[in-house]
Amino acid sequence: MTSPVRLALLGCGTVGSEVVRLLHGQAADLAARIGAPLEIAGIAVRRLGRDRGDLPVDPTLFTTDALGLIKRDDVDVVVEVVGGIEPARGWLVEALRAGKSVVTANKALLAEDGAALHDAAAEGGGDLYYEASVAGAIPLLRPLRESLHGDRINRVTGIVNGTTNFILSAMDATGAGFAEALEEATELGYAEADPTADVEGFDAAAKAAILASLAFHTRVGAADVHREGITEVTAADVASAKAMGCTIKLLCIAARGADAAGREAVSVRVHPAMIPLGHPLASVGDAFNAVFVEAEAAGPLMFYGRGAGGAPTASAVLGDVVAVSRNRLAGVRSPSESAYADLPVRPMGEALTRYHISLDVADRPGVLEAVAGVFARHDVSIATVRQGPAGGGAAGRGEDADLVIVTHVAPDAALAATVGELRGLDIVRSVASVLRVEGGL
Amino acid sequence: MTSPVRLALLGCGTVGSEVVRLLHGQAADLAARIGAPLEIAGIAVRRLGRDRGDLPVDPTLFTTDALGLIKRDDVDVVVEVVGGIEPARGWLVEALRAGKSVVTANKALLAEDGAALHDAAAEGGGDLYYEASVAGAIPLLRPLRESLHGDRINRVTGIVNGTTNFILSAMDATGAGFAEALEEATELGYAEADPTADVEGFDAAAKAAILASLAFHTRVGAADVHREGITEVTAADVASAKAMGCTIKLLCIAARGADAAGREAVSVRVHPAMIPLGHPLASVGDAFNAVFVEAEAAGPLMFYGRGAGGAPTASAVLGDVVAVSRNRLAGVRSPSESAYADLPVRPMGEALTRYHISLDVADRPGVLEAVAGVFARHDVSIATVRQGPAGGGAAGRGEDADLVIVTHVAPDAALAATVGELRGLDIVRSVASVLRVEGGL
Repeated sequence: MTSPVRLALLGCGTVGSEVVRLLHGQAADLAARIGAPLEIAGIAVRRLGRDRGDLPVDPTLFTTDALGLIKRDDVDVVVEVVGGIEPARGWLVEALRAGKSVVTANKALLAEDGAALHDAAAEGGGDLYYEASVAGAIPLLRPLRESLHGDRINRVTGIVNGTTNFILSAMDATGAGFAEALEEATELGYAEADPTADVEGFDAAAKAAILASLAFHTRVGAADVHREGITEVTAADVASAKAMGCTIKLLCIAARGADAAGREAVSVRVHPAMIPLGHPLASVGDAFNAVFVEAEAAGPLMFYGRGAGGAPTASAVLGDVVAVSRNRLAGVRSPSESAYADLPVRPMGEALTRYHISLDVADRPGVLEAVAGVFARHDVSIATVRQGPAGGGAAGRGEDADLVIVTHVAPDAALAATVGELRGLDIVRSVASVLRVEGGL
Repeated sequence: MTSPVRLALLGCGTVGSEVVRLLHGQAADLAARIGAPLEIAGIAVRRLGRDRGDLPVDPTLFTTDALGLIKRDDVDVVVEVVGGIEPARGWLVEALRAGKSVVTANKALLAEDGAALHDAAAEGGGDLYYEASVAGAIPLLRPLRESLHGDRINRVTGIVNGTTNFILSAMDATGAGFAEALEEATELGYAEADPTADVEGFDAAAKAAILASLAFHTRVGAADVHREGITEVTAADVASAKAMGCTIKLLCIAARGADAAGREAVSVRVHPAMIPLGHPLASVGDAFNAVFVEAEAAGPLMFYGRGAGGAPTASAVLGDVVAVSRNRLAGVRSPSESAYADLPVRPMGEALTRYHISLDVADRPGVLEAVAGVFARHDVSIATVRQGPAGGGAAGRGEDADLVIVTHVAPDAALAATVGELRGLDIVRSVASVLRVEGGL
């Protein structure tokens, strides 16, 4: 049989140890699929001597010298499941420049400085694969970077963060507020002790950048992504969404469209939004992920599955390991980064969005006229208005009324300015809820 | 710029003309993605002079000599969208042996004699791609043949025929019978004048064979697939399903499991089945397709989109054209057929299934005991029994009762024999409905 393909594994936490288990348990199948056995050359960890349970691996393979391991001549493929910017960036750039192939799950690094990795891969001639970096086990990046290359992708809308989807699903199911739902998620292990990266949308924004880069053949980084988390979503927002036949999801949205000057551009954003219950993304519950892709010829497509967890992420990592190993044996590399379109990324203010606005207003004649005037001044067209006694289903609040307005599509800056001006009207007692609306309605 | 990659297009019907339109409309993007322009060398059609509307192509490219076109030295890639076994098989074998790359949407040929094509590709050293052959635009085969190669697929359950899904969705929505729903589908263009290939499950069976081959690294042909169509599905069956909180879908199912001798084997089948409304496949309506994949490490995955139509199919064809063109420019080929596992395909009788059986029985003591005895004799375990007055919601039928039984999983042969014996019991007035059950319940 052909001599083995040798892997350096960087990191041996939840994902890394699943990678080790799969390499061991499926060794014969992997060898048959690749045409050569896979062998672990070494495993870089932060500290030796930690109890790793019954991990089926020779304990002498562990080392704290990641860079030394990467530089070894007998290492063909480097698998990185450590995460974070440094030292991962230094390691991977080193590996790629030396001509090794790299498989990584590191979305933060790809979004922060994917260019450094792609450039190093081009220099060294190895492969850079990162299927596990977005939506865990769901085969998503390969379809985007290969299957849909005969088509034109117009929009990608995804639920790509399991923690926030769990929290929002819980708020929707029980009527709980954000803090209470977060507490439940933490207890059940769906949220980390410091949930900032998830609930503030940083994790989803990194994934949005990766998806947008692939969908639009354009380098998009984390800094290009408009980001809003879910910490401000209230039980009242969830109730408003329900009343409209909608649910609230944290969406990442990458869309093609013309900028203010009429040139083709893209906008990339992460924020909570209402989507109608009939939309395929609405029924994606718990910690599941799903990505909805709209392409010119293919029409709507959806990819659904587990977005995180040791085994699902390891599945994606190993799929990439098989691909890059085959390439090495065949002496070829896969198509490198495709960034030829180089479209401008436009600011959030120019992104076309729709708002659902719920106002608590004085119940007297002329209110709707005044409110409508504000929308008109900002050139925002209203789709629907619903007016009713204050407090919805709860007890009335005397002389107030609820006014629920859904707009047509308009530049986000115009919508935000409209809301700002509404807050200043004295007939508007309060702006009870402002949410963007996606996916029809 | 690099010299062009030259295509021979075989067939210029619904799909072929969309391929021509996309090649024209996206020429610049395709060239940038491939690294060389695509050029049509010729288009083989059955007869010249047919009005092809405003197809953006030089009319002198049309020819009736497909074989002559394929053999031309200046043809690099052959795209076949004619369908059927012959003459397509002869053409593609000729092209592959000559070292050309082939992109085909021909599921019938792949299921009938995929081996001939794979062998010819191995001989000639070109690529054989066929993403469009299953589930139209949905990127499905590439994920199966690449992304999930680090994992172990246990089961693939799909809705892969749009015509039958449209018909069953209509029956579910309106309570119509099969004939009436088929008529509507024909009027709306969802069913062909001769709907046999769709409604008898031949089309789905071909796709099931392709999916099973890829999922299990085993050659599976159309003859290995147990096939039942939807012509026998009645309005009463649909009502029974509804009463159980289910809907009826024509499913293709490829499952791994042990055969009677305990050896690892696969079973591949196409038949209508009840699935619970909560299952992700239950909400796949109209002519949409979706495929649900269960893998060891990745867990459940679903792929959803348009399964047919000119533009969606052309999108999948062009994605493949980009891939094989890149390979030709790089002087490489993609991994060839993976059939190393070579698992036995077991007969339908050994497949493990569950039945939902609705009986019209005499309403007297001892009936359930007699019925339960039949199940016990065939070693079939009962999951639930529901007994009620005859006729369900309709007017009672005097001395009869309805008996609805859902079994646990058992070999299909044992379940079929159980139903056969039930039909012979004199206390059983009639077997009102027999349906297999999939996806929990």
